[in-house]
Order: sequence, then C-alpha cells, then structure tokens
Amino acid sequence: MPKESDPDFSIVLTSGGMDSCVTTAIAVRDSRRVGLVHVSYGQRTAARERSAFEAIADHYGIEQRLATDIAYLTQIGGSSLTDSSLEVGEANLEATEIPTTYVPFRNAHLLAIASSWAEVIGAGRIYIGAVAEDSSGYPDCRPVFYEAFNRLIEVGTRPETRVEIVTPVIALRKAEIVQLGIALHAPLHLTWSCYRAEQLACGRCDSCALRLRGFREAGIDDPLPYAIEFSANEA
Amino acid sequence: MPKESDPDFSIVLTSGGMDSCVTTAIAVRDSRRVGLVHVSYGQRTAARERSAFEAIADHYGIEQRLATDIAYLTQIGGSSLTDSSLEVGEANLEATEIPTTYVPFRNAHLLAIASSWAEVIGAGRIYIGAVAEDSSGYPDCRPVFYEAFNRLIEVGTRPETRVEIVTPVIALRKAEIVQLGIALHAPLHLTWSCYRAEQLACGRCDSCALRLRGFREAGIDDPLPYAIEFSANEA
Repeated sequence: MPKESDPDFSIVLTSGGMDSCVTTAIAVRDSRRVGLVHVSYGQRTAARERSAFEAIADHYGIEQRLATDIAYLTQIGGSSLTDSSLEVGEANLEATEIPTTYVPFRNAHLLAIASSWAEVIGAGRIYIGAVAEDSSGYPDCRPVFYEAFNRLIEVGTRPETRVEIVTPVIALRKAEIVQLGIALHAPLHLTWSCYRAEQLACGRCDSCALRLRGFREAGIDDPLPYAIEFSANEA
Repeated sequence: MPKESDPDFSIVLTSGGMDSCVTTAIAVRDSRRVGLVHVSYGQRTAARERSAFEAIADHYGIEQRLATDIAYLTQIGGSSLTDSSLEVGEANLEATEIPTTYVPFRNAHLLAIASSWAEVIGAGRIYIGAVAEDSSGYPDCRPVFYEAFNRLIEVGTRPETRVEIVTPVIALRKAEIVQLGIALHAPLHLTWSCYRAEQLACGRCDSCALRLRGFREAGIDDPLPYAIEFSANEA
C-alpha cells in the first residue's frame, strides 16, 4: 500500500493569497507533477479564499486537489481571524508584538495535512508560501519552524517516506514576491489576501497593508478591488 | 490576549482507549487542573470512542473538554482505519512491517490540536498515551517523534508559551499499563480499544490482541465484552 516518495512530485499549500500563488507558480515550474491542498480554518474570509484556490488550480490545470476544513480552530479560538467576537485591527506594520491575527500554531495543522497527503500519494515535496521577514511576525512562519517540521516528518512517517518542506519565498520581501509573480506570470488577479472582507478588500488590515506596500515598492498596480482609494504616497 | 502557560495545568489527548485512560489517570494525579481533548478522525469506531471519552471525562468530573473532528483524514485515506474499502486485518503481533491500520502521520494532527488549545487556554503540559514498545510499530508513537514535536512547539508558538508533551506510558508493556490502571483506579471498564466493532469487541484485530495479551499477562480479566470466548492459554 505505501507509495514510494517521488522527489519530482510536489504538493503546494495554496491558501489563495498572493504568497501561496507565487509559491504555486514556482512549484509548477520546478516539478514534474503538482497537487494542491487548501485548508479552511474557520477564518472570516474562508469562502473567498477557497474560491481563489480553485481559480488558481484551474489556471494551472491542476486536477489533483485536496480541500479540507479544520473549523475546529474556531472552537479553540484565541485569534481575531477565527473568533468573531474579536476585532481584526487596523494594520500596524511597525509593531513588534505578535498581532491578534495570529492563529495559534496554525501552520502545524496545515503541514500535518499536507504531510499525511504527501505520504499517501507519494509526493516528495511540500511547498508553503510562508514569509518570515516582511511579515506580521508569526512564530510559525520562521525558517526554524520548517526545519523542526522536516525533522518531525523524518521521524514520524514510514521509514521509506521522504518528504521535504520547501519555503521558496520565506526570505523575500513582499515587493520581491510581487516581482517574482509577474516574472512567472502567476495569476495575481485571482488571489485574495484581505483578512476582513470578501468583496472589496479593506486595505486596512495587516494582510492588505503588507500586500499593498509590496505592490507599491515594486511599482506595480495591485489588480484587486479595494474599498478605499490610495494615493501614490500613502503609507 | 495570550495566557501564561501554567505547568500545573495539563491537557490529555484521551481517545477513549485503555492507554489514554491510564494516561488520564496519571495526569489527574499529577496536575492541579486538567482538560481533555478528543479527536475523531473518521475511523470506523469513532462514535464508540467518543462515548468512551465522555464517560471517562464524567468519571473524573472534568468539565473542560474539547471534542474535535478531523474527518478529512478519510479524504486522505491510506489506512484501513479510515478507508472503508480496505479491511482491518487479523492481528499479527509478530509482524515487523507497519500494519495497514497505520494512519499516516496521525499523531501530528492530534498534537497540533492539543498544542493550539494549550496555547490558548494556558496549559503547560500535553499528555498522550502513546506506546512505543509493546505496540504495532507506528512511527509516530516513538519517543523520537515526541522529542521532535516538543521542538516544534518551542519554535512555532509565542515566545512566552511553554508547553511540554508528556508520554508517561510510552515505554511500558501493555501488562504494566493494565496494572498501573488498576493501581490508579482508572475506569478501564469505560474504555474502548477495538478497531472494528462498537458493540462487542472483535478480539481479533491488532488493538484487541495487544490489549488482551496485556490483561492476560497481568493476570486480570478484561471487563469489556468480546465477540469470542478466550481460553486461559490462547495466544
């Protein structure tokens, strides 16, 4: 029953955001075969992100998709993304504290799903679009977390399973991710990043603010519709 | 919002089986405060295990419970426990291969849930009743897996979060777990271990066979009802 791990078969944790879209483009470029995983976790914009995921998968003609739901994170709460009684605050990109949007240990859940799937279908690589540097400072987005997870896979799966986590944009700035996405013809117009809204991006939450700063620094117009107008010099 | 981790506040991954029941008894003995987590993962006997969990929690008067469902493991499959098209085979306790009942990387999912909950509610310890020695040889039941997971929690949660995984029965033989359960007055009569059935335990699957051998070696009668009769000398 166990499948041999194929190092040229990659799966990508594609949330539907910009970083995971560019990561998908990289995985498609660098792999012989690709499958995409989506994980809804009870966040406010889950439906919008799921439709972005499907659109990106359609764009690349990827048939092998796994869409899962870990809405139990709303039972656990502790984050403004999954607890509707907490407000998603205005962006503060200068803050040094971990923001309320941190979903405790979230990426461990995403990687556990991807790892189980990889072991079953024989994929040898798991791509994830985590960004450590130019980000909100979530602890589970740092390289040391992915090193620790690679070790966990090594000791926690069948001896013949060989799965490696790949984080191709982890050290990039958002502007570099935008530029890379443009260079790879990634469908950035199909992505969704806003933490708050599903029709017009709010432009004010951390995720919008980081994205907009990236586009601005890259000198490129963000193709998404926003609820507010920006002047060229706005922070 | 973040709670300080309390080293005397423990949560237990209580599946409803014998090992997790004894582990719960140990956690109750050694902690000032205890919460219990249950995870259904689409296994055949999920409903029976869930009711065993509730009965054990009632027995100890534990109010703080988190019951979650990761039925997406049935989408992933790759195990006879979660894929109804595969048969749960007869026990072979001499086998050296990993049996078909292995659910790929399952315990990583359980620990991710427990870790997120621990971080949110401020629990400092996570107990899990993994058994490495006298077991089916699942890779995610070995001490090295829990060492790797402790590292993952250390680097993947808030800097002030201090959560440690505790595996008090990992090196015990099943007979020792039975004896310890009796000594601690653990409610073994409320547990469920069979992989196949929910009314009368089959007595023939790996989980039943390991449990029955443990009771036999301990010289104690298993209080559960079985579908077959055993002679005192039966293997």
